[in-house]
Amino acid sequence: MQAGKPILYSYFRSSCSWRVRIALALKSIDYETVPINLIKDQGQQFSQEFQALNPMKQVPTLKIDGITISQSLAIIEFLEETRPTPRLLPQDPKKRAQVRMISDTIASGIQPLQNLSILKQVGQENQLTWAQKVIHTGFNALEQILRSTAGKYCVGDEVSMADLCLVPQVANAERFKVDLTPYPTISRINKTLLALEAFQVSHPCRQPDTPPELRA
Amino acid sequence: MQAGKPILYSYFRSSCSWRVRIALALKSIDYETVPINLIKDQGQQFSQEFQALNPMKQVPTLKIDGITISQSLAIIEFLEETRPTPRLLPQDPKKRAQVRMISDTIASGIQPLQNLSILKQVGQENQLTWAQKVIHTGFNALEQILRSTAGKYCVGDEVSMADLCLVPQVANAERFKVDLTPYPTISRINKTLLALEAFQVSHPCRQPDTPPELRA
Repeated sequence: MQAGKPILYSYFRSSCSWRVRIALALKSIDYETVPINLIKDQGQQFSQEFQALNPMKQVPTLKIDGITISQSLAIIEFLEETRPTPRLLPQDPKKRAQVRMISDTIASGIQPLQNLSILKQVGQENQLTWAQKVIHTGFNALEQILRSTAGKYCVGDEVSMADLCLVPQVANAERFKVDLTPYPTISRINKTLLALEAFQVSHPCRQPDTPPELRA
Repeated sequence: MQAGKPILYSYFRSSCSWRVRIALALKSIDYETVPINLIKDQGQQFSQEFQALNPMKQVPTLKIDGITISQSLAIIEFLEETRPTPRLLPQDPKKRAQVRMISDTIASGIQPLQNLSILKQVGQENQLTWAQKVIHTGFNALEQILRSTAGKYCVGDEVSMADLCLVPQVANAERFKVDLTPYPTISRINKTLLALEAFQVSHPCRQPDTPPELRA
């Protein structure tokens, strides 16, 4: 099987795609983007062609080393195991557990409950209230967790997978007009991370499929 | 810090708790169960005491080696790193990616959308339809993925973390009266796994907090 340059199926605004884009940027992995527009054409993720790559009909999906991987954290763990530098998981198993706990709190406990397909089912008039409630519940927990794990970043002073989950989730919170005042630790870490180049080049406002009016 | 015997905060019916119970059983780790009844006393997970352990107010939570870990997959990865035998992740990074992809498909893509707190918000009259729809969407994808990854179990012929996620999710599907006929691969693997001792001793019908009428 020809490996070639990795291909990331991504949507500029997808927070899960952003997680992977940050990992690729931090590890200096050159890749091509194939944009999958989740809204256009009634959702390009529902095409036969894309479903064959990812039966969950979600982004991101990464073709790399001759295989196709879906689920952002599974992708990041694969990148970590095959391209270990710079590392996104600490060496100490207890700290690794903290990183994964924070990552899963976002990836299983917050994001899925406020993603596009759920909001569609909730109905347009309830979307904002629903999303805000889900994010507040999650951020209350996260703020408390981070108070005991954080240094400069989510866990100590090294950028980790947890940070790759945090920043895109805060961006979602901002889109849903969540008041972030009650979350000073989350806000501080988010701001520090957004100053890093890998978080900037991977930002939704700078992707090949970012609409001109949202570019920055 | 005194480590002592690990303590698992668990609810007999929680599918995420079951995942961890299987891991503990497979790895022959002796532990104590502290039952957290998600329904009684308006939900024991909301007590101040439990919130201090797990700010997300969810089970499972594991106290082990002097730390407290929440999120079932983070717990299982920690057990895997600190108690590697028998392994729950294959050696080959590509197969590990498949295991994590399947695990995350369930842990982020299916279970959170049909768990107790979401069903409460959906309203009693819509619960069954909602849960069935979510599980059908997920199982359609999972069936397709497993057709290319499965051997005897989810990925090849070794029990892995993916199997620890599959069996409890199938049990949820059965509780919500999902017709499993369209999913022959899922059904076959589930049946094979349920014959293993670790899946039996960890089963919801055999926990310290299982009500007498549900015991088997």
